[in-house]
Amino acid sequence: MQRSIATVCLSGTLPDKLESAAAAGFEGVEIFEQDLLAFDGSPAEAGRMAADLGLAITIFQPFRDFEAMPEPARARNMDRAERKFDTMQALGTDLVLVCSNTQAACIDDPARAAADLREMAERAAKRGLRVGFEALAWGRHTNRWRQAWSIVRQADHPALGLILDSFHTLCLGDDLAGLSQAVPPEKLFFLQLADAPRLTMDPLSWSRHHRTFPGQGELDVAGFLRATLDAGYAGPVSLEIFNDEFRAAPSRRIARDGLRSLVWLGEQAKVAALPAPPKLAGIEFVEFAVDETARAELAAFIAALGFRRAGTHKSKAVELWRNGGANIVLNAEPDSAAAERFAQLGATVCAMAFRVDDPARVVARAEALRCPTFRERVGEGERRIPAVRAPDGTLIYLVQSPSPTPIWEDDFHLLPDAGEAKGDLTGIDHVAQALAPGMLDSFVLFYRAVFGLAADAPWELPDPYGLVRSRAFTGGDGSVRLPLNVSESTRTGTGRFVSALAGAGVHHIAFATKDAAAVVDAASTRAAPLLDIPDNYYEDLGARIGLVDAALAGLRERHLLFDQDGTGGVFLHAYTAPFHDRFFLEITEREGGYAGFGAVNAAVRMAAQQRGRG
Amino acid sequence: MQRSIATVCLSGTLPDKLESAAAAGFEGVEIFEQDLLAFDGSPAEAGRMAADLGLAITIFQPFRDFEAMPEPARARNMDRAERKFDTMQALGTDLVLVCSNTQAACIDDPARAAADLREMAERAAKRGLRVGFEALAWGRHTNRWRQAWSIVRQADHPALGLILDSFHTLCLGDDLAGLSQAVPPEKLFFLQLADAPRLTMDPLSWSRHHRTFPGQGELDVAGFLRATLDAGYAGPVSLEIFNDEFRAAPSRRIARDGLRSLVWLGEQAKVAALPAPPKLAGIEFVEFAVDETARAELAAFIAALGFRRAGTHKSKAVELWRNGGANIVLNAEPDSAAAERFAQLGATVCAMAFRVDDPARVVARAEALRCPTFRERVGEGERRIPAVRAPDGTLIYLVQSPSPTPIWEDDFHLLPDAGEAKGDLTGIDHVAQALAPGMLDSFVLFYRAVFGLAADAPWELPDPYGLVRSRAFTGGDGSVRLPLNVSESTRTGTGRFVSALAGAGVHHIAFATKDAAAVVDAASTRAAPLLDIPDNYYEDLGARIGLVDAALAGLRERHLLFDQDGTGGVFLHAYTAPFHDRFFLEITEREGGYAGFGAVNAAVRMAAQQRGRG
Repeated sequence: MQRSIATVCLSGTLPDKLESAAAAGFEGVEIFEQDLLAFDGSPAEAGRMAADLGLAITIFQPFRDFEAMPEPARARNMDRAERKFDTMQALGTDLVLVCSNTQAACIDDPARAAADLREMAERAAKRGLRVGFEALAWGRHTNRWRQAWSIVRQADHPALGLILDSFHTLCLGDDLAGLSQAVPPEKLFFLQLADAPRLTMDPLSWSRHHRTFPGQGELDVAGFLRATLDAGYAGPVSLEIFNDEFRAAPSRRIARDGLRSLVWLGEQAKVAALPAPPKLAGIEFVEFAVDETARAELAAFIAALGFRRAGTHKSKAVELWRNGGANIVLNAEPDSAAAERFAQLGATVCAMAFRVDDPARVVARAEALRCPTFRERVGEGERRIPAVRAPDGTLIYLVQSPSPTPIWEDDFHLLPDAGEAKGDLTGIDHVAQALAPGMLDSFVLFYRAVFGLAADAPWELPDPYGLVRSRAFTGGDGSVRLPLNVSESTRTGTGRFVSALAGAGVHHIAFATKDAAAVVDAASTRAAPLLDIPDNYYEDLGARIGLVDAALAGLRERHLLFDQDGTGGVFLHAYTAPFHDRFFLEITEREGGYAGFGAVNAAVRMAAQQRGRG
Repeated sequence: MQRSIATVCLSGTLPDKLESAAAAGFEGVEIFEQDLLAFDGSPAEAGRMAADLGLAITIFQPFRDFEAMPEPARARNMDRAERKFDTMQALGTDLVLVCSNTQAACIDDPARAAADLREMAERAAKRGLRVGFEALAWGRHTNRWRQAWSIVRQADHPALGLILDSFHTLCLGDDLAGLSQAVPPEKLFFLQLADAPRLTMDPLSWSRHHRTFPGQGELDVAGFLRATLDAGYAGPVSLEIFNDEFRAAPSRRIARDGLRSLVWLGEQAKVAALPAPPKLAGIEFVEFAVDETARAELAAFIAALGFRRAGTHKSKAVELWRNGGANIVLNAEPDSAAAERFAQLGATVCAMAFRVDDPARVVARAEALRCPTFRERVGEGERRIPAVRAPDGTLIYLVQSPSPTPIWEDDFHLLPDAGEAKGDLTGIDHVAQALAPGMLDSFVLFYRAVFGLAADAPWELPDPYGLVRSRAFTGGDGSVRLPLNVSESTRTGTGRFVSALAGAGVHHIAFATKDAAAVVDAASTRAAPLLDIPDNYYEDLGARIGLVDAALAGLRERHLLFDQDGTGGVFLHAYTAPFHDRFFLEITEREGGYAGFGAVNAAVRMAAQQRGRG
């Protein structure tokens, strides 16, 4: 399938947009008229620029408010069409998109619409051009594809065909049932695809601001594509996304996301197979970029939570710290990717490792999805662990699991008592990332497409200085949990972190235990900097939950937060104070299948973290 | 009326919120439970803090999901109520807000709801407390005030009353018809007020994110207040606003806006009269803060548009530049408000002057609305021009109009040929301001409340690097026009300007003429830096409008943009290039009653201004 993208998806001038589309690997572009109007070269120059970049101009769009107008508007519209045909010929495209009329003056008469479109098609045909008609979801009289098709059929001109757009159909709760029976393949002129979150708002506002690439939203775009292909459509598959954040983001990143989305969609719609997504079995480690000073300080911070140095790397300035099943790597190797990260951002998470069934297959999948991969320098006899780069540059290492030998044995001098049996943590429960708002959709697509993670329902968390929106991605039966947090406010904890990290990064790491009270008690004896929780929280908890007083007192004295779901699941969790305002750690205990993150406690936690600010 | 505000309206910790509310002049606060839970002192300490600030705690809220639950939830809810009564007594408030139950388990039986509320009221009464019941717009079975009242009446307990909230009623298209007949005044326990823009979305999302203070939205909150007072209500009038931007903004500014909104609302609802808003008769001048270097450069910039130096101030380093009826003041006076502004922000607009029928009355109105006013230093025999400060600190001078002597005559040495007859501009058509998104509501309230300006419909303008939202405020039969522009993106022209100006400021000034072509021709001979407009714009204009070729050529060679409304109005306009990326100027010609701003051309204009960026 020929992959195409509308210029309106991307920011910048028309040349920026064309270059970004070509660099991402698109084969075609829709020229959105407004982008051409704002371009300070001729249409012929725009056409040459596209051709030089190897981009076909798949369509010129949109031509609005054409059909079924009373005179003299009708005659003027025919003149307008002729002038746009001039532009199309100069651009070098043969297809124009006419979207259904939204004007109040539009006559409610399909026969008139058909007659007008037939005349336009006849004029187009004289120049070797074609006209495609699309039902806008908010068209005045035509807003379903079946109506548009009925008009096209009635017009009955070879240069007139139907254009389908997934958003306009799916946002109305409609589908393509009957398409392959009703419409001959040669009458399907063009296919536009867009996804969107399910929102309860008018379709026009929804469409203009909240469209996303397929895989970033909740509509069944794959089913839509499949149905169109099943009906015999063989033309370009083109993304047309109106999104406030895309408009403001760098065009190169958005174009790459767009192509990734179409590759992934091809798999979902069974157009082309990709290497299967991994079976996930947890997070093996989280790695911090540090220098020698930061390593010492961070080691002390985690030691207070019971982590002990378990080994040193054979050839690099890298240490493994461990508490039971939870591993933290402190990477101070000079002239490495980690050192580069430290130089730019200070002490911060530079990598994490997912346990997967077949690392090589994940790399192949990531490469098919045009994600950058990474191969580290290794010393003799050391194991090479492949990695994929997340959209913010964080490395995600891929560790074989199950594996006959732990990864640590080849590369590390392990200390004698470094076994996983020692310690009170069972592993890494979740890793939370804070993102600039415009980065969220890139991460959503990355996690969903490369790793097959599923999105939980979104949460809104009230920080004292603004709202934080949170959405968790999970996989491997809950063994990998990745909450993503964004905030429009720069004064929230999330917002301040994003500013410090220039866009995105790991914001907190939660460890799993089977006995949070014991872990907290032990941490307290080590003077761990645990976050104070106000008494008022426990007063309210007592009123809400009806715990016995002793249980409540146990939570209160340990600063443990509490949540329960409706089905017997219970969650206990406690936080550390922030490490230099860069990240914080959490101790979690899940019981009875609890699957959340204690979002109900987030307001209290965030207020405690923000205390003393303003 | 006792003025109250809910702590959830304001950002920060509970002490921040209380201090900001008191500093703004509120007499009471609603304690939002989540704010108390996150507070690290006891409820009694919170109560003392409020009392020390002179704030009554008007209500404790919300108590959720109480009525009509099956056992054992019902019994647990009674226990929960008792514990919250403890909290209320410690806080020092006698009233709790119970909002209608949203739980799926809630029984659809008003008699059960009434019985439960009666029992809660009975328990409250034993402690001298009271319970108010409010219909949430998304309550499971109770979402209209008439239903809530029916339950309260059925419960028939002196410690149980009705709570009204303007948003919950108005968002459903409901009103208070019949209130004064149905509900005795002593059963009206509390009144919450919130406004909102009219949005097509589910009431829950609308309520949680988009509420505003009265006067910032589009609901008839004044009518709602009037109806409640007419029904005999004499309790607190309290603002409860959930707004993403308010949560992120400095609490002092938001609290001041809140109080201003209630003062204004009191006038609208005929509770208390204010000095009447002014009759406006245009913008007399715009004033720039400059130093000597910037003055020379800016003078050259405006001279190219035909401005000439018309006078110098008698006692200050201030010049008047004039073209016909358009006046620009260049203020380089050291140790002045303008010098302060220049030191902070560079060459920028520091003031403008509105022609008003009675400056003293406007000052009195502004002071009643708690707006800061300003009195400048004056030399002997010079006229003192009063001013009001806009939310960004810009001064708005108030110039008497009509006036026997122009303001310039007392204070300026006018040059012999300084008359208004000379020149081709007729005045200042509009002054556009760019604002950080969180500042918009403050400006909306300021212009509406102090000057009685009306809001035009909003526009969305596609800058190549993100969306710009624009809303114009107009008054004085169109003699004062003030578009306000905001952009979430920092890469748009608006976003970059806002970053440079630390939040808000005048972004462009449009001058009026009766012959835009002549003004542009004259400017061209003076090598004015007019903004190039691409040929493609004129190609499209020809296709859309059907102008004769000569007319189109005349526009094209002058880089004039064109718009027309549906009723014979026509708009011609041309722009300068930006002055050091700080602001730009516009020449406008309105014909036939055209009332817009050429928004249809904004995309092409903004792309031209952004050319060469990325």
